Amino acid sequence: MRTLKLIAPAAALLFLAAALLVFGRAPIPRADAALSNVSDETEACLECHRSATPGIVAAWEKSRHARSVPMKSKRTSVTGRGVSSDKIPEELSRYVVGCAECHAKNAGKRPEAFEHDEFKVYSVVTPDDCARCHSEEASQFSGNLKSNAWANLMENKLYRSLADSINGIWVGENGSIEKRPPGESSNADSCLVCHGTKLEISGFEKRETDFGEMSFPVIEGWPNRGVGRVNLDGSKGSCSACHSRHEFSVAVARSPSTCAECHKGPDVPAYGVYKVSAHGKMFEARKDKANMTAIPWTPGKDFSAPTCAACHVSLLADSDGEVISERTHRMNDRLPDRLFGLVYSHPHPLDADTTKIVNKNGQPLPTALDGTPAAKYLVDEKERQRRRARMSASCLHCHSTSWVNGHFKKLEQTSKETNSQVRAATALLEKAWSGDTSSTNLFDDAIEKKWVEVWLFYANSIRFASAMGGADYGVFEKGRWEISRAITEIKEELDK
Amino acid sequence: MRTLKLIAPAAALLFLAAALLVFGRAPIPRADAALSNVSDETEACLECHRSATPGIVAAWEKSRHARSVPMKSKRTSVTGRGVSSDKIPEELSRYVVGCAECHAKNAGKRPEAFEHDEFKVYSVVTPDDCARCHSEEASQFSGNLKSNAWANLMENKLYRSLADSINGIWVGENGSIEKRPPGESSNADSCLVCHGTKLEISGFEKRETDFGEMSFPVIEGWPNRGVGRVNLDGSKGSCSACHSRHEFSVAVARSPSTCAECHKGPDVPAYGVYKVSAHGKMFEARKDKANMTAIPWTPGKDFSAPTCAACHVSLLADSDGEVISERTHRMNDRLPDRLFGLVYSHPHPLDADTTKIVNKNGQPLPTALDGTPAAKYLVDEKERQRRRARMSASCLHCHSTSWVNGHFKKLEQTSKETNSQVRAATALLEKAWSGDTSSTNLFDDAIEKKWVEVWLFYANSIRFASAMGGADYGVFEKGRWEISRAITEIKEELDK
Amino acid sequence: MRTLKLIAPAAALLFLAAALLVFGRAPIPRADAALSNVSDETEACLECHRSATPGIVAAWEKSRHARSVPMKSKRTSVTGRGVSSDKIPEELSRYVVGCAECHAKNAGKRPEAFEHDEFKVYSVVTPDDCARCHSEEASQFSGNLKSNAWANLMENKLYRSLADSINGIWVGENGSIEKRPPGESSNADSCLVCHGTKLEISGFEKRETDFGEMSFPVIEGWPNRGVGRVNLDGSKGSCSACHSRHEFSVAVARSPSTCAECHKGPDVPAYGVYKVSAHGKMFEARKDKANMTAIPWTPGKDFSAPTCAACHVSLLADSDGEVISERTHRMNDRLPDRLFGLVYSHPHPLDADTTKIVNKNGQPLPTALDGTPAAKYLVDEKERQRRRARMSASCLHCHSTSWVNGHFKKLEQTSKETNSQVRAATALLEKAWSGDTSSTNLFDDAIEKKWVEVWLFYANSIRFASAMGGADYGVFEKGRWEISRAITEIKEELDK
Repeated sequence: MRTLKLIAPAAALLFLAAALLVFGRAPIPRADAALSNVSDETEACLECHRSATPGIVAAWEKSRHARSVPMKSKRTSVTGRGVSSDKIPEELSRYVVGCAECHAKNAGKRPEAFEHDEFKVYSVVTPDDCARCHSEEASQFSGNLKSNAWANLMENKLYRSLADSINGIWVGENGSIEKRPPGESSNADSCLVCHGTKLEISGFEKRETDFGEMSFPVIEGWPNRGVGRVNLDGSKGSCSACHSRHEFSVAVARSPSTCAECHKGPDVPAYGVYKVSAHGKMFEARKDKANMTAIPWTPGKDFSAPTCAACHVSLLADSDGEVISERTHRMNDRLPDRLFGLVYSHPHPLDADTTKIVNKNGQPLPTALDGTPAAKYLVDEKERQRRRARMSASCLHCHSTSWVNGHFKKLEQTSKETNSQVRAATALLEKAWSGDTSSTNLFDDAIEKKWVEVWLFYANSIRFASAMGGADYGVFEKGRWEISRAITEIKEELDK
Repeated sequence: MRTLKLIAPAAALLFLAAALLVFGRAPIPRADAALSNVSDETEACLECHRSATPGIVAAWEKSRHARSVPMKSKRTSVTGRGVSSDKIPEELSRYVVGCAECHAKNAGKRPEAFEHDEFKVYSVVTPDDCARCHSEEASQFSGNLKSNAWANLMENKLYRSLADSINGIWVGENGSIEKRPPGESSNADSCLVCHGTKLEISGFEKRETDFGEMSFPVIEGWPNRGVGRVNLDGSKGSCSACHSRHEFSVAVARSPSTCAECHKGPDVPAYGVYKVSAHGKMFEARKDKANMTAIPWTPGKDFSAPTCAACHVSLLADSDGEVISERTHRMNDRLPDRLFGLVYSHPHPLDADTTKIVNKNGQPLPTALDGTPAAKYLVDEKERQRRRARMSASCLHCHSTSWVNGHFKKLEQTSKETNSQVRAATALLEKAWSGDTSSTNLFDDAIEKKWVEVWLFYANSIRFASAMGGADYGVFEKGRWEISRAITEIKEELDK
Repeated sequence: MRTLKLIAPAAALLFLAAALLVFGRAPIPRADAALSNVSDETEACLECHRSATPGIVAAWEKSRHARSVPMKSKRTSVTGRGVSSDKIPEELSRYVVGCAECHAKNAGKRPEAFEHDEFKVYSVVTPDDCARCHSEEASQFSGNLKSNAWANLMENKLYRSLADSINGIWVGENGSIEKRPPGESSNADSCLVCHGTKLEISGFEKRETDFGEMSFPVIEGWPNRGVGRVNLDGSKGSCSACHSRHEFSVAVARSPSTCAECHKGPDVPAYGVYKVSAHGKMFEARKDKANMTAIPWTPGKDFSAPTCAACHVSLLADSDGEVISERTHRMNDRLPDRLFGLVYSHPHPLDADTTKIVNKNGQPLPTALDGTPAAKYLVDEKERQRRRARMSASCLHCHSTSWVNGHFKKLEQTSKETNSQVRAATALLEKAWSGDTSSTNLFDDAIEKKWVEVWLFYANSIRFASAMGGADYGVFEKGRWEISRAITEIKEELDK
């Protein structure tokens, strides 16, 4: 037994050393290890919610939040882990980040906060809540097009008419049918799942619970985790769109599957293209060896091939700790051009709020229907070069300059050619419209829908396939084959 | 050496403890550990089959079956692991579950059993075989729509004509072509791969083997693992449709990829929708941390986000062992409405055999073509509420009541709206049919096929996307965009 | 401390034993363990490239190449690991395989080699480079259709006109549009990503680098990793198409995701079908337990269900080391028929160069448009049987003879029936062409494109679904539903 006493800690240490040797990192602490520094308010929440919503509690217990006291977790170097805010509010700084820290301690700013047991709480956690500790990320995100995704869709007259043409509900009997505009529920259950809803309080209701009768706010547009959600505190966005609750693991935000939630369909086929790219295939084949939580994140060492986040968001550094790419939550920092969603590819908008953009014909579009960019609302050539250089920096970590230059030269040419094809298809439609594109709904006839597919699905997909090296998608899945077929069909139909 | 003797078991123990600490569970026993309690009959099988079909043997050796003696494995509590049958047949009870236990010891009931070496054996293992130990699961499954999947398709005159229109073979030369009805092989190689074939013995044949000449039955419809297979012992179904042989790991049945085998295509896009849902993305990103074999299965602790099985089948319990959802192999226990496969969504059928259903117009459909439900064959409002409550129970483990209510309210509205759109499209077709829907094949003209896509692909997909929160699929992949396009095209064509 | 001294190695040993017990294999050596036997030339490369392209270096450090000295790594038995060349060039034999071994030591044969620091180096590593150690694999691959993928597409007049019809660029304004033939960049960014480009040196350019001004070749068609790339040393192909650089892990080549890069789209839907097959679902569910690097590779033991490589490429052996399937890099060794890419399925071509094939009507196709095979260019019945037997050998490892025979009987029938349907559709088109198929482009009208989809997408997919047991893809995704719809549409349009 005396020998055993010596052995116990020694062997534990040896195990740790061996585990480090084998796995390259220390084991993550177990969820059921005792938690400390939990605030009294959070303890009170947990008391009921361990049985009311045990799944949430169990997930949170596994999170870094459950073990991190913000004051002791400040980021001390550019490649370090930790919170970015210089001043963390006093009421958050000395406890781990628990229920109350996110769902109660900002209640003063929340119209929807409600009395709950002895506290005032709110369900919807917003970027302004997260900003109290993660100010830098929140600030970057507020410049991200995504943060304005609600208004950029719903308050742009043209896009809105496209959305209406998709979500409108056909009704009718006896062979006479008509289309009714979509209701709020239709939009909330389609476009706005990703774009975000605009939350509104419609009242309060009493509900019987296991803990007696309680009163809860009724919030229109809830539930929703859309990236551009308009919140009741006036903030825009939802961090949990990518940072899934309640583990908030960086591994989730870095996984390609996370981006797929909103970027798989043919309108934004990033995930579909990634899966047939060299990066996608290697990541999939070697992800069991990847270290998805390392900060900084080192290409080649921590992962065999980049995920979406690696190229578009994450802080990357080499093995010596030299920064390759700075972390950004304004994702077009590394993107000169917007390849998708609009009629033509074009330099990225200057401002996250794109509702202000007006093209030469007075339409709220970043290009005219003949392709002319609305240049004063878009980044200029110098900024495009800066952004391309930022993206190239991560490419060059694993590829030679010739490789990288050759890659971007092809993309540039492909972008030009898809724009040419869209111009040709649009010219056919213009003839049908007789030049009048201001008064008509451009998206509701069958032939117009075919035209929409030309740019919204096929031209997009060809460019994504070029940008991310996923030709299998861009040729036959939704791309060159389809654009050739669709324009041929449009031409033959109009020639009749 | 004396010290080492002490250390060896101590360190082994410490390793186990450490592994438990790190991985949260004990290591699974290795396949090549010596097996005990193998019956003489199984030993005899293994003697040749270790070299005849070594892959099967190696897989089985890794299985729980290879280590479990049914008599010692009875389930002793509702959340416990083990077999559910009260009375296990004597010949099965004292040995591990090996070749002979499943492929020989029920031979008396099998017309296809054949002399093989010194035993009478059969290839096709059926739910009646599994029921000897797993009676509860088999009994639930017999009430599952899936168990009747063969008859529900092949013996419903209307569905059969749809299947024929899909599987029929165009033949012809010189520009004059005609469609021939599909042969048995065509059906067995398409619809019936999932629905199951009807097995029939067409004779016996002799074959030269490595062990001399042997005689084997010739079974029409074999091989097949379809979930509604009609077996030669009169039973219906195939447990191995989901519980893949010969490891029979519960991890396989619980994996979303398993359901994808039959539920990915646009007619039942459950997997496609799941992959772009919040649940799907989180499961994918965190599955390396999931415990896929724990019984009971605890949300938040064992997995970050539910798989198909978690919401539709599995026994879920919280960390205190309190049951959240009872295990069920009758999957619509938790489902009020059937969202797919038919012209309109409707309350679930009362009976697993849907061939008895007749709508108000005499058609074998759960609704009329105008949407009126054939109510007396469908569950009533009270039962719908019970089922919704069962499903909600698992949602509420990780979501608040407002979230869950809001979610199902949206689904209800979306279901209503898709039915309205299908009604409108059907009304257009009815005009073309001039009201006569009884004598014509409803599915063979090009415009009819477009109408089928409206309900079988698009309305379905929109509802699935709503039910499982995968809007990316339901808007542009196969959903609102497509339904809007297709109805517009039908209308424009009929307006001509 | 004296006790501890004894414990340290003992515990390390115990850990290893325990790890072997738990994981079934020894932990892989860590990337940062010191490397030995690195050649002076490679050391010189590493000196700059550790900071110039640290991702490549980090990946290489994890590779087997970084630890293997070819001379000591000769394969000594058919199931052994190691290099296959009998004579390894002297300059390669005594060092680990580093930068210089692949990128410098064959420079004599390379027109594109350039002075770089003090060495002559080249970027593009070719099958002839790899052949110096892996002669057997390179020799097999040179007989693989894939190695000729560039010429088989680009130098076949008919296929080329199909590619042109897909990649051509529509241009135009004012409603008058025309199609221009694709430029080299368009092809390089689409078909040739997978088929391979033809590399050509267009000159040399000077570039400023972190290490001063340097000169680099400008290579047209670069970057490219296509499997049939035509290299500057005259060799054909790119090993890194499947063996991703710079880890070159066999696990990548064996992963289904790797094949997906070129085999997912509707023209070759192998991956789409695999994902909904029993094999695909089981592999996905159990891949965390798979040993993806074992040599030989043992079904049942190393993996629960085969990947693409297991059935088509890899050396498989049973637990006793008996060979089930010999490794082959000429993938049609195990394939009697070519199911995809052409108008009809047909016996595999005899020669990897298919440009020589001429059908009875003088077209460069392996069948006539009426389905008659160009028999003298295709394998005969005996060879088909040999190949089917090779494939069956791996099936029989886990399936009974009845199962395997039943499976291939269904495939044969399905292949026949899809050919019949394509014949019917082609007959309709022939009527429209009035028998003249030699002078016209067969692929550019809308109705011709529908016909192409019949064979290139749908008939293909039905056959793949049959061959690999993925009916969910072959019925509704892209298969029987679509072929029935498309032929109906073609017929109705031509009947007008």
